[in-house]
Amino acid sequence: MSAIDLEPAAASQAAPFRFKLAATDGAARSGAIATSRGEIRTPAFMPVGTAATIKAVYPDQVRAAGADIVLGNTYHLMLRPGAERIRRLGGLHAFMRWDHPILTDSGGFQVMSLANLRKLTEEGVAFQSHIDGSRHMLTPERAIEVQCQLGADIQMQLDECIALPAEHGEVARAMELSLRWADRSKAAFEQLGDPAQALFGIVQGGTFADLRRHSAEALVERDLSGYAVGGLAVGEGQEAMLATLEATLPYLPTTKPRYLMGVGTPSDLIEAVARGIDMFDCVMPTRSGRHGQAFTWGGRVNLKNARHAEDANPLDSLSKCPAATEYSRAYLHHLMRSGEYLGAMLLSWSNTWFYQELMQAMREAICAGRFDAFRSTWRDRLNSTEPAGQ
Amino acid sequence: MSAIDLEPAAASQAAPFRFKLAATDGAARSGAIATSRGEIRTPAFMPVGTAATIKAVYPDQVRAAGADIVLGNTYHLMLRPGAERIRRLGGLHAFMRWDHPILTDSGGFQVMSLANLRKLTEEGVAFQSHIDGSRHMLTPERAIEVQCQLGADIQMQLDECIALPAEHGEVARAMELSLRWADRSKAAFEQLGDPAQALFGIVQGGTFADLRRHSAEALVERDLSGYAVGGLAVGEGQEAMLATLEATLPYLPTTKPRYLMGVGTPSDLIEAVARGIDMFDCVMPTRSGRHGQAFTWGGRVNLKNARHAEDANPLDSLSKCPAATEYSRAYLHHLMRSGEYLGAMLLSWSNTWFYQELMQAMREAICAGRFDAFRSTWRDRLNSTEPAGQ
Repeated sequence: MSAIDLEPAAASQAAPFRFKLAATDGAARSGAIATSRGEIRTPAFMPVGTAATIKAVYPDQVRAAGADIVLGNTYHLMLRPGAERIRRLGGLHAFMRWDHPILTDSGGFQVMSLANLRKLTEEGVAFQSHIDGSRHMLTPERAIEVQCQLGADIQMQLDECIALPAEHGEVARAMELSLRWADRSKAAFEQLGDPAQALFGIVQGGTFADLRRHSAEALVERDLSGYAVGGLAVGEGQEAMLATLEATLPYLPTTKPRYLMGVGTPSDLIEAVARGIDMFDCVMPTRSGRHGQAFTWGGRVNLKNARHAEDANPLDSLSKCPAATEYSRAYLHHLMRSGEYLGAMLLSWSNTWFYQELMQAMREAICAGRFDAFRSTWRDRLNSTEPAGQ
Repeated sequence: MSAIDLEPAAASQAAPFRFKLAATDGAARSGAIATSRGEIRTPAFMPVGTAATIKAVYPDQVRAAGADIVLGNTYHLMLRPGAERIRRLGGLHAFMRWDHPILTDSGGFQVMSLANLRKLTEEGVAFQSHIDGSRHMLTPERAIEVQCQLGADIQMQLDECIALPAEHGEVARAMELSLRWADRSKAAFEQLGDPAQALFGIVQGGTFADLRRHSAEALVERDLSGYAVGGLAVGEGQEAMLATLEATLPYLPTTKPRYLMGVGTPSDLIEAVARGIDMFDCVMPTRSGRHGQAFTWGGRVNLKNARHAEDANPLDSLSKCPAATEYSRAYLHHLMRSGEYLGAMLLSWSNTWFYQELMQAMREAICAGRFDAFRSTWRDRLNSTEPAGQ
């Protein structure tokens, strides 16, 4: 058999994107998304690989932690090393040595928060790179083109993310623009995307229930493969975020995955899962790790605190992560105080692992019909912090 | 059998420090140092764990790379986290999760190069910490006390390291002081050290052949477990360093290990092994790795160079290190250009591994009686660099 004979076979193995619920418990749901690169168990937490790397963690460690999917950032990757370059090198999966599913955002959030000299029009966003000042134009079509060059299994429509608080009229304007961009994103994706890939829409509307409902219903009419809730976790507080979820999720179909973007703390995840969210991403586990903050089954721990200086105990004896069990808190304290790479490496690894253990525990609780008990046992405990000043 | 019954058995397993040559090839030698924590194959390269961590490399990776022993820094560890603290936490091996042999320096070199407000007397060196300004006194006795608190398998005498170039008289004065400190170090070690541990003397004398010979002969009279050549690789150049080795090594016994401190490049290692050196340490593999410099079997590679931006080839297909074979040069280039942790992690790992492969290749060449052929094949090739400006 010649090499070329393999191609049709390989193509036929590419399963279409498919979401299947296995269990529900109240509004909480557990299931799996099938993709051509493997299954994503839900609820799922996606470690963030901004620049084609989960910061300070090896890809093998990310996988061993239990992650089925990681997130890549369109804005960062289109600027450096460039999406065309990644395509020439075989795509993002090969580039970063991650052969499981990848979701890419559309760049909409970063272009508004990081880029310079932004100019927003109906067409898209013109901006200058925060790295080298080079000029770029991000349109719905370009965002899809970049995500296809990267080879993302799940792609996101371009949306306009406005800063909150904002007036109803301004939020409505951005939400309506995002809907028109959803149409253009879908048209571009139908032209450029692979049948095994999926495009998600993004519900906008700030914290206004009427706008969220309108955005959700309008997107559902467009029949996308999944729906994200965007524009949250930008300082509105957990209560407003959860209220917005409650005003949005009833208008999304139960048959499609629901993704809460950029969230969050362990209690955020538990409360959002309780309301029916299936997917999350957040830089918190790795960013906190680099700053000495650990997430454990006993709550949050600040390894820089002097109280850990002579503590021979491991970080988290309930964890299965080697970083949390094989090194003493005293050693982690020393590494963080000394600014050593290994401190950031161990805590980023441990936090990445903890978030996956948390998702696995939630999936098991939902399947066993005991999610409410899980939620009341763990929600506050996981968000607890050490006494201050020690 | 109760737990306490195990103690005498465990103690009796503690083999005394022993060096055994397996083969010589010209002046080059290969053998092994037996210690109570396992064997050190020689010639050996010791990765440097300044602050109780080989920077950006996991201890498991250091071991898997082939390292039998690592080095810890007395100066750094006595200041942070403190030797008494490490002792209370079970010693340096447990603290940094390295249960194989550890050699610690005496602090003499770092106190002269890093500390503030140094005052050298016959008694020792008073100084202020470069970290927090705290005042300390390092004497020969204190240096041994600290190394015993750390639990180092191989300990070094305190010596005075002077900056070169220096006058003959000044170098002689420092060398004579170092001999008196060797006596005090030995007396302290006999009182505080464990019978399974070893104390090495340090030959000083700058690049003056007469002083090196005198220092070597005087130390040999003191019958230490091994002899280091100190005060080199401080800018004198490879030619002067090798000439100094040639003026020193004939006066050291063939039956004891010989350790060239703080060296060096691959060609330094090959040339020093050719003259009879058994042990090395150097920050070069990890420091270079953090700056994007890789050591490979094809020579030195600067991953920051634009020529690697689209190179899908691995770093070093002749290496067995996953970092050198499983990631593309283009990805390593991207990581280094982006300042990502993973770039420093992969290159520090790869360089640590390369240095161990180099030592293993030298040991095999010596045992096979083909060290000269190895030397002429590899010496210049390994030190080659890429064309500039690409």
